[in-house]
Amino acid sequence: MELKYIEHIGIAVKDLESSIKYYEDVLGLSCYSIEEVKDQKVKTAFFQIGQTKLELLESTSEDGPIGKFIEKKGEGIHHLAFAVDNIENQLEDASSKGVRLIDSKPRSGAEGLEIAFLHPKSTHGVLTELCEKKG
Amino acid sequence: MELKYIEHIGIAVKDLESSIKYYEDVLGLSCYSIEEVKDQKVKTAFFQIGQTKLELLESTSEDGPIGKFIEKKGEGIHHLAFAVDNIENQLEDASSKGVRLIDSKPRSGAEGLEIAFLHPKSTHGVLTELCEKKG
Repeated sequence: MELKYIEHIGIAVKDLESSIKYYEDVLGLSCYSIEEVKDQKVKTAFFQIGQTKLELLESTSEDGPIGKFIEKKGEGIHHLAFAVDNIENQLEDASSKGVRLIDSKPRSGAEGLEIAFLHPKSTHGVLTELCEKKG
Repeated sequence: MELKYIEHIGIAVKDLESSIKYYEDVLGLSCYSIEEVKDQKVKTAFFQIGQTKLELLESTSEDGPIGKFIEKKGEGIHHLAFAVDNIENQLEDASSKGVRLIDSKPRSGAEGLEIAFLHPKSTHGVLTELCEKKG
């Protein structure tokens, strides 16, 4: 695989509003976008820091992936996303090396990116996302 | 606080050797340094990706912080580290805004950095490290 840089870090939070307040008032970052991703049952808030974004994720449903994650592990870092080119090729390469894919084909994620997840059982526990900005 | 960029992401792994193999052979990254931090009871391996490093952490003792983390939560992302200037001032600022500090004064970390941790109970679940390259 060829990874370019860390596109974002996904962080599961219980309450988006109070978390944004912490990231802004304490850490000094600035939220530039709030977006709901209905497909994933989340509301997201984005912050840029250097080359990378922080993506806060609040579940809009208890049975969504973030709701379940928080129930099991509590608030905290949820996934790590790498920027790639040719996401389909990267997925094929990962699969050929024995990585279990959550998404065998890319789908639409937040910020207009094409995204796909690798299963944490194949990645030493890190839920790993690939992201490509197309056209 | 003023954060410059994401200095590194700390990832707890059970076995450094097999994890390095995954990060190199599957993800295509290159391990440039292996270092033991006795103070923290860990052996670390570093990879550069864009502006940020990935720091794999294997516990050298069951009662060390990484050993305990893996026992409780399994392998996965352990902490998020921001590059800062004037780390003492940043800690003072964080504390004045109600953040609980794990380290009230910076100490020596891997790669010759001055480091200090903020407590995840004050940071919406993210174990947060500040790092400064001095001198």
